[in-house]
Amino acid sequence: MKVSVIGATGYTGYELVKILANHPEFEIAALVSETYADKMFSDVYPRLRSICDVVITGRDYDAVAEISDAVFLCLPHAAAQDAAAFFYEKGLKVVDFSADFRLKDKKLYEATYKVDHTYPDLLRKAVYGLPEIFEVDIKKAELVANPGCYPTSVITPLYPLLKAGLISPEGIIADSKSGVTGAGRKADIAYSFCECNEDFRPYAIFSHRHNPEINEVLKETGKETNVLFTPHLIPASKGIESTIYTKTTAGLAEISACLKDFYRERRCVRIYDNGHIPSTADVTDTNFIDIGLFVKGERLIIVSCIDNLIKGSSGMAVQNMNLMCGFDDTLGIL
Amino acid sequence: MKVSVIGATGYTGYELVKILANHPEFEIAALVSETYADKMFSDVYPRLRSICDVVITGRDYDAVAEISDAVFLCLPHAAAQDAAAFFYEKGLKVVDFSADFRLKDKKLYEATYKVDHTYPDLLRKAVYGLPEIFEVDIKKAELVANPGCYPTSVITPLYPLLKAGLISPEGIIADSKSGVTGAGRKADIAYSFCECNEDFRPYAIFSHRHNPEINEVLKETGKETNVLFTPHLIPASKGIESTIYTKTTAGLAEISACLKDFYRERRCVRIYDNGHIPSTADVTDTNFIDIGLFVKGERLIIVSCIDNLIKGSSGMAVQNMNLMCGFDDTLGIL
Amino acid sequence: MKVSVIGATGYTGYELVKILANHPEFEIAALVSETYADKMFSDVYPRLRSICDVVITGRDYDAVAEISDAVFLCLPHAAAQDAAAFFYEKGLKVVDFSADFRLKDKKLYEATYKVDHTYPDLLRKAVYGLPEIFEVDIKKAELVANPGCYPTSVITPLYPLLKAGLISPEGIIADSKSGVTGAGRKADIAYSFCECNEDFRPYAIFSHRHNPEINEVLKETGKETNVLFTPHLIPASKGIESTIYTKTTAGLAEISACLKDFYRERRCVRIYDNGHIPSTADVTDTNFIDIGLFVKGERLIIVSCIDNLIKGSSGMAVQNMNLMCGFDDTLGIL
Amino acid sequence: MKVSVIGATGYTGYELVKILANHPEFEIAALVSETYADKMFSDVYPRLRSICDVVITGRDYDAVAEISDAVFLCLPHAAAQDAAAFFYEKGLKVVDFSADFRLKDKKLYEATYKVDHTYPDLLRKAVYGLPEIFEVDIKKAELVANPGCYPTSVITPLYPLLKAGLISPEGIIADSKSGVTGAGRKADIAYSFCECNEDFRPYAIFSHRHNPEINEVLKETGKETNVLFTPHLIPASKGIESTIYTKTTAGLAEISACLKDFYRERRCVRIYDNGHIPSTADVTDTNFIDIGLFVKGERLIIVSCIDNLIKGSSGMAVQNMNLMCGFDDTLGIL
Repeated sequence: MKVSVIGATGYTGYELVKILANHPEFEIAALVSETYADKMFSDVYPRLRSICDVVITGRDYDAVAEISDAVFLCLPHAAAQDAAAFFYEKGLKVVDFSADFRLKDKKLYEATYKVDHTYPDLLRKAVYGLPEIFEVDIKKAELVANPGCYPTSVITPLYPLLKAGLISPEGIIADSKSGVTGAGRKADIAYSFCECNEDFRPYAIFSHRHNPEINEVLKETGKETNVLFTPHLIPASKGIESTIYTKTTAGLAEISACLKDFYRERRCVRIYDNGHIPSTADVTDTNFIDIGLFVKGERLIIVSCIDNLIKGSSGMAVQNMNLMCGFDDTLGIL
Repeated sequence: MKVSVIGATGYTGYELVKILANHPEFEIAALVSETYADKMFSDVYPRLRSICDVVITGRDYDAVAEISDAVFLCLPHAAAQDAAAFFYEKGLKVVDFSADFRLKDKKLYEATYKVDHTYPDLLRKAVYGLPEIFEVDIKKAELVANPGCYPTSVITPLYPLLKAGLISPEGIIADSKSGVTGAGRKADIAYSFCECNEDFRPYAIFSHRHNPEINEVLKETGKETNVLFTPHLIPASKGIESTIYTKTTAGLAEISACLKDFYRERRCVRIYDNGHIPSTADVTDTNFIDIGLFVKGERLIIVSCIDNLIKGSSGMAVQNMNLMCGFDDTLGIL
Repeated sequence: MKVSVIGATGYTGYELVKILANHPEFEIAALVSETYADKMFSDVYPRLRSICDVVITGRDYDAVAEISDAVFLCLPHAAAQDAAAFFYEKGLKVVDFSADFRLKDKKLYEATYKVDHTYPDLLRKAVYGLPEIFEVDIKKAELVANPGCYPTSVITPLYPLLKAGLISPEGIIADSKSGVTGAGRKADIAYSFCECNEDFRPYAIFSHRHNPEINEVLKETGKETNVLFTPHLIPASKGIESTIYTKTTAGLAEISACLKDFYRERRCVRIYDNGHIPSTADVTDTNFIDIGLFVKGERLIIVSCIDNLIKGSSGMAVQNMNLMCGFDDTLGIL
Repeated sequence: MKVSVIGATGYTGYELVKILANHPEFEIAALVSETYADKMFSDVYPRLRSICDVVITGRDYDAVAEISDAVFLCLPHAAAQDAAAFFYEKGLKVVDFSADFRLKDKKLYEATYKVDHTYPDLLRKAVYGLPEIFEVDIKKAELVANPGCYPTSVITPLYPLLKAGLISPEGIIADSKSGVTGAGRKADIAYSFCECNEDFRPYAIFSHRHNPEINEVLKETGKETNVLFTPHLIPASKGIESTIYTKTTAGLAEISACLKDFYRERRCVRIYDNGHIPSTADVTDTNFIDIGLFVKGERLIIVSCIDNLIKGSSGMAVQNMNLMCGFDDTLGIL
């Protein structure tokens, strides 16, 4: 399979290229970036010198379509709409990293991202790419919306429990924390070393755009949730940890059994009910999501950890593309 | 005033000595440490060379009592009981950094710290040293129990709101995060650089000993709370951030007014209702507690930040001692 | 004394304002910044809320001159020339943080900074502001060029030894390392958290503009040096450490005596000949320069540490202004 | 090939197990640790849960010898002597991570490490395992002494240049910096998070035990060097950067050609003569050594970067074992 990456030089593009360079079935056809066109990818990321010296090309989507069977779109929200539609029309398989095709509800998308959605038909055809939950649909999809990093950490443990009715859909709180790569690779004083180092803070209180995504996807369980999500910035490069507060009448054993059963064939989900507290370092540079379960009285605390760029983004994207191409989802990842 | 520090070479001792070395009214009489006796304090902390070259002395409490008007006890929990009783009996003013005199309820103390309390009388006389709340009692006290760092960050914003009935005592969640100095200065793989760096994790889920302290002190508002407190470890040296989830029927203006009014003469409390989100860097190396208020519907999120070693420990201890000695609480601190 | 800061919102300006806010003799007249005009200083740096809520003003130098006795110029190289000349002409005392008046040799300045110097007369009148070495001249100066951070760490230990003929002027190597604040406060991917964290690298090999400054100032010892200076970037916010390799025929005792004698009345210089190895943490947030001496055979290794923003910049600037105003150099600093 | 790791739970053991778990030809026979016997390896390092759940065994070398074709010894200096001799006698291939077989000169070993060497015959048979330089001997060896991390970064660029006579053996200075994993995984206040974070310092000035190793190995070039080596501690987990100061009469082109020619078939050596300055992040989690060359007049500055635990230790160990077993040296590594 010849695959191309549009917007290859951000952090998600970088992690994606690292995976693709070692993938047994995918071959890189083109790496596209307007900013770095004509440079080698390893000029931008010297760590990959002799591993990926592909010359970056500019924005000629026709040329890309001609030489590629599939594309990964690592473009900003809104910008991905046209690109996704273009490659979809050309018959390529598309995994879109942006939020443009995550929210089935056009109105909700437009209210959340403050832009119009001009491809409502495509929106209906797109599949939300949480491979551990929506594998069946992803296998048949031509366009997959790669989930947000925070929602991945929150939805994965909540989905089976809500579906099984083991936790209350009311009053769920997700207090989430992310490393700085979550903000992307950009020149911004707010994300400069000296502003983030030795600091810790919440941000986007009551207003983060991943919050509607969480509740929208959880609707698929048949329950209406109103998860309150608060993100924080960790002075570290990588990792998301979500501490999720829920109410349950079930015991630890039942809760754990529910999750282990739901994910029993999913190699990337690791569940702890033995007191081990997952941490971001447990999953750094891996495609695992580690879930720890803690029950006291009616309180269930879930600790959920991922590498925001791998399981939270590029690793998951390759899982999705693997499924779309008929491979095992973990091919080239674990 | 001649003051001494027992257990001077931990991180709280160090921050305390830094403050005392520049305090206009306190003069260091003795710095006590069994481990480092006969060394200069600046041999242990070279940063203070020529600022505090006092020679550390071993554990001769009689000698200390003879030359001191007041003592700060920076000793581990349980170990402080005898020392506090000893210096109290000798007529010295005592600020105790440990948990030994924080919990009025002897049984709760013993259940929480798994040791007996052998000075129940003294326990009754001790005053909980949150100077912004209990100033009147502290001024008259001879023994002050310096609050825990996490409880300081949680109680300070909640106390006035509970007392005024503006928030529900039910279902409060405090998701707190602390820098690594909170674990003290010790040889422990768990707090080694390579284990903490690029990591983030919760710990002591449902079991941290500051949780009973929070609810016990909040009882003084006349409301029975059941705050659920979860601590996390930030890969940074300093700082505590608590994201506190509460329910309210009041609006932002009323909540803000309540806090501003309660703390209107307290120079160390800074309250934000303008959307500014406090961060640990805002308070590093200061004695401020910064409180941000965010309301949406019935949800009030409070963001509370302190320097765990200053406002959360040594700075507050000096505030307390200032009050016990008749000075302005912020003397030598701001 | 009414003092103003031009370019107050960078990191050196911030540290300067922190010092000035507590200085017993200096009162802030104006804080100038084009970018942040009309905001409070504590809007830009919330850590200083209630400590310095001065409203920042835009670039009206006439107004500043009218209300100020002295100014600190925290402007980029080249931009400082006109401002320095302006305030000098108006009769204000000027401490200039830039390189514009450091190099006495106009040609060398122009070759190094690639701009013309349009005030050669003023260049001659300016004094190089290393207060531990040039105190006599600084006291009489109206315009002081505040030294570069790296040169401060390198010149301070070398100057007395070269002057006394105890080390060879040949083949000196200064391998220096700096925290990221040395790059200033700016939006630049190269200084973003994720690019600096977990990285360490040299930069500007053979080409850093502080290299000519080092050799130029050391000429004042009567010796011609050709110090080879290589800077590196530490993944930390603050601190400079210089490991300086020299040749000597003297022993440790003689070398140490020379430095201790030269700096015997200088409270900010701390010299170690007992094996203690200075580190950047020893001097963080202080105005000290710590110097460690290590001799083996003909090799003398000097370890020199400063806080790049304090002793390497703003603290030293206040030392200079103190001297220019007839105060003790350490007033308001130690 | 069945391979075992003795001392598997330190940081080098961990990185080694990570490589072995994915190696196409090596199968883990036993992981030995006295401290963690009977636990799963993934209990100690949860990151490897489901990747390496091997149960750790205690110190029964006979049992290990029976089931293994080869062993990696990750033991402290001195402790490795007996183990190496034991497994060597049993006919296993041995790669020893300690310094016990690195120095051919028994007296120099004993003077440097302050212990006797009780296997002088074995010392003569052992081969110094820098695979890029001593491949021919390593292929025939039964016992390979895995080089020190610092020496790897210093010797690799210097060896070909000294051999070719392009640099002077006199007056070479290696100013090296390492991340904290270089100190190993241990409970030690000096390496605690709060002591290392926001600090930078040299250590072991004139006295590091890797200094004799550097000069001893460089003797093989036929030149007698007296490299002066100074290590420093970076506030980062991983990486070594060495800034090496040498004198040359050759130009950049000749120097670069010499190195590129010497290492033309060595896939792990990446050489830059185009101005790119290698950094530790360029090589993190890889087995590459990146070398940058900078010439001005008679000065050649070499910048050399490795991941101290991979190319500086465990990756190189697998390279060596690969060669000893007749495989390509990079099998399972790149």
